[in-house]
Amino acid sequence: MASDLAARRGRLRQRLAELDVDAALITGLANIRYLSGFTGSNAALVVYADGSDVFCTDGRYRTQSAGQVPDLERVIERNCARALAERLGAENVARIGYESHSVTVDGLDELRETAPDATLSSVREAVESLRAVKDEDEIALLREACAIADRALADLIDRNSIRTGRSEIEVGRELDGLMLEHGAEAVSFETIVASGPNSAVPHHRPTGRDLEAGDFVKFDFGALYGGYHSDMTRTYVLGQPAEWQREIYAVVHEAQRLGTAALSIAADVRHVDAAARDHVKASGYGEEFGHGLGHGVGLEIHEAPAVSYLGAGTLAERMTVTVEPGVYLEGRGGVRIEDILVVRAEGPELLTQTGKDLTVL
Amino acid sequence: MASDLAARRGRLRQRLAELDVDAALITGLANIRYLSGFTGSNAALVVYADGSDVFCTDGRYRTQSAGQVPDLERVIERNCARALAERLGAENVARIGYESHSVTVDGLDELRETAPDATLSSVREAVESLRAVKDEDEIALLREACAIADRALADLIDRNSIRTGRSEIEVGRELDGLMLEHGAEAVSFETIVASGPNSAVPHHRPTGRDLEAGDFVKFDFGALYGGYHSDMTRTYVLGQPAEWQREIYAVVHEAQRLGTAALSIAADVRHVDAAARDHVKASGYGEEFGHGLGHGVGLEIHEAPAVSYLGAGTLAERMTVTVEPGVYLEGRGGVRIEDILVVRAEGPELLTQTGKDLTVL
Repeated sequence: MASDLAARRGRLRQRLAELDVDAALITGLANIRYLSGFTGSNAALVVYADGSDVFCTDGRYRTQSAGQVPDLERVIERNCARALAERLGAENVARIGYESHSVTVDGLDELRETAPDATLSSVREAVESLRAVKDEDEIALLREACAIADRALADLIDRNSIRTGRSEIEVGRELDGLMLEHGAEAVSFETIVASGPNSAVPHHRPTGRDLEAGDFVKFDFGALYGGYHSDMTRTYVLGQPAEWQREIYAVVHEAQRLGTAALSIAADVRHVDAAARDHVKASGYGEEFGHGLGHGVGLEIHEAPAVSYLGAGTLAERMTVTVEPGVYLEGRGGVRIEDILVVRAEGPELLTQTGKDLTVL
Repeated sequence: MASDLAARRGRLRQRLAELDVDAALITGLANIRYLSGFTGSNAALVVYADGSDVFCTDGRYRTQSAGQVPDLERVIERNCARALAERLGAENVARIGYESHSVTVDGLDELRETAPDATLSSVREAVESLRAVKDEDEIALLREACAIADRALADLIDRNSIRTGRSEIEVGRELDGLMLEHGAEAVSFETIVASGPNSAVPHHRPTGRDLEAGDFVKFDFGALYGGYHSDMTRTYVLGQPAEWQREIYAVVHEAQRLGTAALSIAADVRHVDAAARDHVKASGYGEEFGHGLGHGVGLEIHEAPAVSYLGAGTLAERMTVTVEPGVYLEGRGGVRIEDILVVRAEGPELLTQTGKDLTVL
């Protein structure tokens, strides 16, 4: 794992020349974790062109960082970005890169004061673009994060816990507890349980509403494992499905299949989105699918690439993305189906294993 | 509640003149929640001197925001800060305030481009300083968040779940599950279970280490309820305590009592810290108490005021703070005891109810 981390820093180092900087001050926590292995909540990292990388965290993490970041020089200071900026200033580093999407205005002012002679410029999302392509260790963690979520949902169904008379909140809490039991470090994000008309709200927060016969019940949830986020959505029907429910379920199911089939190396993300969206549009529900098809997922729940009509760029081998079309009929109900997949030369690898056929509970 | 929210915006509005701005663009999510009631993950808010406040979120939160923010004009756009900046630009607002500690460098560039004729200046932590003083509705939510954590820990003990042969991770997951059962929306932060030598690490992440007879077992955890974070620490002994364990437990216990007793209106936060720290120092463990005494807590787990030798300023009525001294003997074990208290004219109100006498399990 230490060699993976060094290789990641090496890939960033290779980019420093084209970014016109001698060193990059990394302050985004997910980026720091990616490059150093450190999992705490306060840190900064400098990657130098000459390889003399240095890491900073505060005293709370002295022991933890010794274990997680043994191969880097470590500085222990409360204000990590300032401590490393002072060092860069003292070393007279001429061109310092920083992350303009994560450094605050106050943070940049502090950097300017601390290294007044340096030329400061943004490295933009250089680390995020590296992170979009996973290594196999990362994929293994995502696979397990997905498996935990699959197992928790299977248990919830086996226990007959998704039933009339239970509230969205109750069912959601049970699902969260099952993920923890199956080994999740935490939930990936606030679990969505959306029943009946609430299922038409793409991002519904669970309420005290009791599940009723005839409801769509939509679950969007995931497990955190080794720092990696799973993310899946399944939509069930309680009792006999109505014709409109069968119809939109079939549309979303087929769109999800088509979007998945379009995942290939060098595919334009807008074309992948269109592969699913065109089917939804042709079925007459284009207006009811108001979000992008998917997103990259890893150390953050939403990361590059955006698989969307608003996105840009192409897929690459070992990108991990969600495919999650939905159709939402306001006031009635909605369906979304979401898996995580790995882009592979031989065709996408499916990490989410739960079945997708219309399931009546 | 809507009237509370309007009152909060009114308090910020009163500060706009001294901040030399005609409107404040609020982008920190906790600040937005505080001022609008909105709980989603993407939003922005403008508070105007003339009261024509406007809120923005994206399409995922259309329904939710209609329910949570009924009294404000709502804009639905993906890039909320930009949408509201465009509006401020179109309205020719002369002086725009922004939050320089939460707006990123890229965000400020976008604001400059979108409202090129306006004078931009930071409102600093104006909203955070309002948030430091809670209203009674907020205190009621914190009280319940504390009660949930108390009940979960009591269950854990009643079930004899803190016992030799179980790992830190296992015990931590059970505690997390119990908080959810007792009504937590989520855990406040990653639960710390630190046993034996690990208890000497102030911020230890649970490991597979099995609890052993003679261990200190330190729990630092909390429940999220209504958006408010509880935060408590208790340290137990498994089996017969050794003399050194009795000694440092007694030191920390007394320091915690002294720090609590020093919480009063207008008390300097450094004096409160010193009230506890002086006892630890006099007992010979000054070097082993390497962090501040406490911190404000509310919509964020760490917020103003810092109750620390590094802090500044005085306490005010209805501030909610932790008091959490600790003594950590590297390689052997450590003790921390932490409660949340409300600063009151009649003396501090204790929200954390779990007892603090040395408890042997």
